[in-house]
Amino acid sequence: MSKIRVGVNGYGVIGKRVADAVALQPDMELVGIADVVTDWRIQSAAGRFPLFASTDEAREAMGRAGLSVAGGLEDLLGQVDVIADTTPKHVAAVNLPRYREAGVKVILQGGEAHETTGHSFVAQANFDSALGRDMTRVVSCNTTSIVRVLGALQDAGLLAKARGVLIRRATDPWESHLGGIMNTMVPEPKIPSHQGPDAQTVLPGLDLVTIAAKGAHTQTHNHYWTLQLTRAASREEVLAALRAAPRIAFIRMADGLVALNSTIELMKDLGRPRGDMWEVAVWEDLVTVQGDEAFLTYQVYNEAIVVPETIDAIRALTETAPNAAASMKITDSTLGMRKDFLTENVPALPGDHP
Amino acid sequence: MSKIRVGVNGYGVIGKRVADAVALQPDMELVGIADVVTDWRIQSAAGRFPLFASTDEAREAMGRAGLSVAGGLEDLLGQVDVIADTTPKHVAAVNLPRYREAGVKVILQGGEAHETTGHSFVAQANFDSALGRDMTRVVSCNTTSIVRVLGALQDAGLLAKARGVLIRRATDPWESHLGGIMNTMVPEPKIPSHQGPDAQTVLPGLDLVTIAAKGAHTQTHNHYWTLQLTRAASREEVLAALRAAPRIAFIRMADGLVALNSTIELMKDLGRPRGDMWEVAVWEDLVTVQGDEAFLTYQVYNEAIVVPETIDAIRALTETAPNAAASMKITDSTLGMRKDFLTENVPALPGDHP
Amino acid sequence: MSKIRVGVNGYGVIGKRVADAVALQPDMELVGIADVVTDWRIQSAAGRFPLFASTDEAREAMGRAGLSVAGGLEDLLGQVDVIADTTPKHVAAVNLPRYREAGVKVILQGGEAHETTGHSFVAQANFDSALGRDMTRVVSCNTTSIVRVLGALQDAGLLAKARGVLIRRATDPWESHLGGIMNTMVPEPKIPSHQGPDAQTVLPGLDLVTIAAKGAHTQTHNHYWTLQLTRAASREEVLAALRAAPRIAFIRMADGLVALNSTIELMKDLGRPRGDMWEVAVWEDLVTVQGDEAFLTYQVYNEAIVVPETIDAIRALTETAPNAAASMKITDSTLGMRKDFLTENVPALPGDHP
Amino acid sequence: MSKIRVGVNGYGVIGKRVADAVALQPDMELVGIADVVTDWRIQSAAGRFPLFASTDEAREAMGRAGLSVAGGLEDLLGQVDVIADTTPKHVAAVNLPRYREAGVKVILQGGEAHETTGHSFVAQANFDSALGRDMTRVVSCNTTSIVRVLGALQDAGLLAKARGVLIRRATDPWESHLGGIMNTMVPEPKIPSHQGPDAQTVLPGLDLVTIAAKGAHTQTHNHYWTLQLTRAASREEVLAALRAAPRIAFIRMADGLVALNSTIELMKDLGRPRGDMWEVAVWEDLVTVQGDEAFLTYQVYNEAIVVPETIDAIRALTETAPNAAASMKITDSTLGMRKDFLTENVPALPGDHP
Repeated sequence: MSKIRVGVNGYGVIGKRVADAVALQPDMELVGIADVVTDWRIQSAAGRFPLFASTDEAREAMGRAGLSVAGGLEDLLGQVDVIADTTPKHVAAVNLPRYREAGVKVILQGGEAHETTGHSFVAQANFDSALGRDMTRVVSCNTTSIVRVLGALQDAGLLAKARGVLIRRATDPWESHLGGIMNTMVPEPKIPSHQGPDAQTVLPGLDLVTIAAKGAHTQTHNHYWTLQLTRAASREEVLAALRAAPRIAFIRMADGLVALNSTIELMKDLGRPRGDMWEVAVWEDLVTVQGDEAFLTYQVYNEAIVVPETIDAIRALTETAPNAAASMKITDSTLGMRKDFLTENVPALPGDHP
Repeated sequence: MSKIRVGVNGYGVIGKRVADAVALQPDMELVGIADVVTDWRIQSAAGRFPLFASTDEAREAMGRAGLSVAGGLEDLLGQVDVIADTTPKHVAAVNLPRYREAGVKVILQGGEAHETTGHSFVAQANFDSALGRDMTRVVSCNTTSIVRVLGALQDAGLLAKARGVLIRRATDPWESHLGGIMNTMVPEPKIPSHQGPDAQTVLPGLDLVTIAAKGAHTQTHNHYWTLQLTRAASREEVLAALRAAPRIAFIRMADGLVALNSTIELMKDLGRPRGDMWEVAVWEDLVTVQGDEAFLTYQVYNEAIVVPETIDAIRALTETAPNAAASMKITDSTLGMRKDFLTENVPALPGDHP
Repeated sequence: MSKIRVGVNGYGVIGKRVADAVALQPDMELVGIADVVTDWRIQSAAGRFPLFASTDEAREAMGRAGLSVAGGLEDLLGQVDVIADTTPKHVAAVNLPRYREAGVKVILQGGEAHETTGHSFVAQANFDSALGRDMTRVVSCNTTSIVRVLGALQDAGLLAKARGVLIRRATDPWESHLGGIMNTMVPEPKIPSHQGPDAQTVLPGLDLVTIAAKGAHTQTHNHYWTLQLTRAASREEVLAALRAAPRIAFIRMADGLVALNSTIELMKDLGRPRGDMWEVAVWEDLVTVQGDEAFLTYQVYNEAIVVPETIDAIRALTETAPNAAASMKITDSTLGMRKDFLTENVPALPGDHP
Repeated sequence: MSKIRVGVNGYGVIGKRVADAVALQPDMELVGIADVVTDWRIQSAAGRFPLFASTDEAREAMGRAGLSVAGGLEDLLGQVDVIADTTPKHVAAVNLPRYREAGVKVILQGGEAHETTGHSFVAQANFDSALGRDMTRVVSCNTTSIVRVLGALQDAGLLAKARGVLIRRATDPWESHLGGIMNTMVPEPKIPSHQGPDAQTVLPGLDLVTIAAKGAHTQTHNHYWTLQLTRAASREEVLAALRAAPRIAFIRMADGLVALNSTIELMKDLGRPRGDMWEVAVWEDLVTVQGDEAFLTYQVYNEAIVVPETIDAIRALTETAPNAAASMKITDSTLGMRKDFLTENVPALPGDHP
């Protein structure tokens, strides 16, 4: 069977991770990446992937910078089945007509509006409804985590209502010398924040209100939830529902994982590329149930969490996997995704010799 | 009428502010301050207030450091009606027998347990029950803010249940070169956090759960609340209840006060000593009501908020004010406390000449 | 004698401090302040100073915002002898023709080029050459500190060559929710940095090279110097030269002032408005001399250090003080400037009653 | 030829990297790691390397924690030729007698005093003098970088005198929830700082003074140097000397690598384990020469830079490489060390398939 030919437009925080992940999939071929920058961000990729220029200006600039350019965006589009657009917010909507004209399937990211594609995607929630579509939108990192965790409790028939406080990282590390916040917090200027309605594009029935703010750190979001359950439940029931759902992994204060930075270091210790964590890390020993209410806290590695969803969306649009389980099995296995970071056997690192 | 003679033991973040506030009260006399340190923290106060040594060792060290010492703690206790203990957490409990033996009234701070004094104090909530007592405990900055805000809604008959997320500052600015957190958040290792039960020592009936974490900033706590109301209410009703309560001041995103640091700068612009904010600053335009639920966010200047409460507690124990309103009127007027930082006439600053 | 009538255009970090300082001078009258913003930054000042609009658009916007406006910039210029322009970088150069047309004396700040005024000012270095001029430029916070400290050693005949590393604060606290840096350092993209040549506009003969970078903190710059002396000297000679110069104050690690935040807290403890430090704080016990080399470190409160210089520049341009010493005596006394923050008698705070 | 059997005692920031690096060497065998902790830090390694307990108490605790323990430290020592002690500061000195008794070669880290081993090690500077010794000390991250860079210029006959300002990261990321600094800088309480004399243990003749401070960031040190050359030289001569020396790599502002975080992100983009940078990254376009003076700035990845030195020290003590060049060739090749991060062909990442 021939491989799905994939292009990535926008080689930034998400795009470079999607490119790496596509390259790992046995059923996909990364045809190339496209971007507009010419500096270190793209130079470090130039030897690894065929490089295309997203615009004519970029193509000229790349030439001047001595980068070897395989062509323009249209050249890339002419060679792929699917384009993953991982450009900055609101750029993808402008790119869309070019993609449609080229007749390729399209995956956008959470910075775009649901209406742009008419479909919003989280693998475990609605893979089926994306099968064969021309395009979909992988929802944002915050929303993906919400759908995974609250969706798990909803699937278990436990969740009636969710009220969350989302403390977001202020900026990504690579650009933390620009536009960061210092020694402060910045509440979103509106309550409810947009993540609630955004999650409802995937989980339409969910009674959900979110309040958001930026915290003075650069890595990972941190969500705090008050959950009204459908009935009085035991803590073990809630834990079981979370344990059963994919792409949620438990961490524990009792293991010394007591702060965002502990988990970030652990990912490096596990030998993960870029120290990525694709799972939502739920603090197991902070899951608290009182009568018909539950409280929990989790950590979202915002730079990486949507990467496996993007991979699965590629299979859904191209109908190369029959259902979520089939696609996620391949994705999760190639990435090395886990349900617990410490209790399972730790896989050998790339550098290990058996 | 003779003035209430007050001593302050522990000239730290809270103690130095209490000392300044006592010195401003027309009905109080600051007899002196006591501490154990000998460095800049106490040197800068040495010319302003009579200085006592809290321990024999401290007395010797102060002498060696060239500080002029008026006596030991017992000397201070012999000259006062009330001692405000603002020593670090758990030190006050050890000091208590010395205070009791000296026969002085005692005010402890929120680092001590409720049981140590048997009474916990927030002026607007339970001044009366402290009248004539031998001792009380002014609750912590977080708890004080909770009692003020939730108490206001409870008094208005609007509050059924409160679920809050408290993002605390990591450390105070003066000690931020020691023991701070960097580029991370640190969730409390237990849900619910202790602030809920602590608020219940003042508002016994309140259905209240809090989740807490430390954020990577040094100034002011930031609380996010989901409130179950007793009935569907209008936003204006909720605002009116908050507006009617003392020591809550509104701020607005619409005025450009969009982050913790904006408010902190405003306090300096208002000419406040040390840039203090004794009020809870509630974002008026973030107060949101949906049916029988309300959502709100406020900012707590943790270094200063308990100072007016401590002043009122002094009057309650000594029965020198008949009720909360009478005491708070003096306290709030001497400090220059406000209900809105921008719409009222701004008072002349100390340096202004008419 | 009639007072010098002063206007301040640009009520930001520097402007609001200059306004306060002008209001404190016995020989000056603050006629008003002008700005273009309408939010909390100007609302908090509106009750204190007559407010003018710097532009026509601003005047309309201020009216819509309910601010009481005394007139436009030209109205302000018509009533003053001197305008202090404390607008953001490069705005003053554009304003200059309006000032010249109005026939007022002009003081610009360090964001403008030396050539714009043809004269750069630091009171203790070159007050005389500014006497009676139409305009001058008060150099930047970094440069002012360099001129004070290195100028002191040059005046004492001790300084041959200076090589400095300047770690700047990344952004001011009030705007630290915008454009800050997080968990990084940002070296200036050029060595030498511009502060060396800038200091040479005031101290023309000085052999001086600076390297600069931004650090991940919001308050105060921190300079580290390697000084080639003209001859082998004793540590006491170097200290004596610094002690003799104005507007330099010693701090000591031995007093517990061990980090930037310690000194910042001390300023608040001393009751200073906004916690300002107008002096350069040199760590006395870090001044090290080895043969004919000296090493030292100091702290520059960038928000405040140029305020006294601006006050003195007003007197120089208007020839209302015969020399630097006469002007600085008034300025320093009204501000409460000191040579040592701990060993002198601490003056009574505004709130103290004798 | 049989492999060098190596043990690592202390599986922390340095130890875990040394373990990984040893495992990559074709001529070494990692027999095991030893530590005293039982939490996530060691759990994540437990499946990868044989685990030994450094103390009897630790052995019991590890058993209770369900960790599979291969033995005590003495058991490990009985199976190795060399022990790399990467325990926290001052612990190694206590461990030394146990190592000596076991008759194994010993490598300590820079937290220990030079006198403890009588030899301090930087591969390119003094590999030969370590050949066959019983023990050596790999100097600290700061000192290693100084020896590499200044040693390169000294070897080229260009360096007469060096004066440096070292801005250190405040704490390592994994422990940044404990003991960090916030919104401040902390100057070392002594000038000169200890790094100068420490570098002289490897480069005895060097005229060197350092001033140090902690900055408010968690990753990488940043050094700023003023260098007195032996003669007027061209910028190209200085660059050539740096280019010729091993383990120094150029980065450029012109490539967009403008801040510490840019370089840190680049290491992740290059697929390096944990995002490590073993080279000293010198900003090529900031190297400035004026007559007989040079100025430069570089970045030191403090968590990783001493790892290759430790590997080379193992070969020196065991005399399994005849000289520095032979050992460094193997080390640098296995780690993938580079002279320039962008202009060379980027090697394929572990996940790439040809």
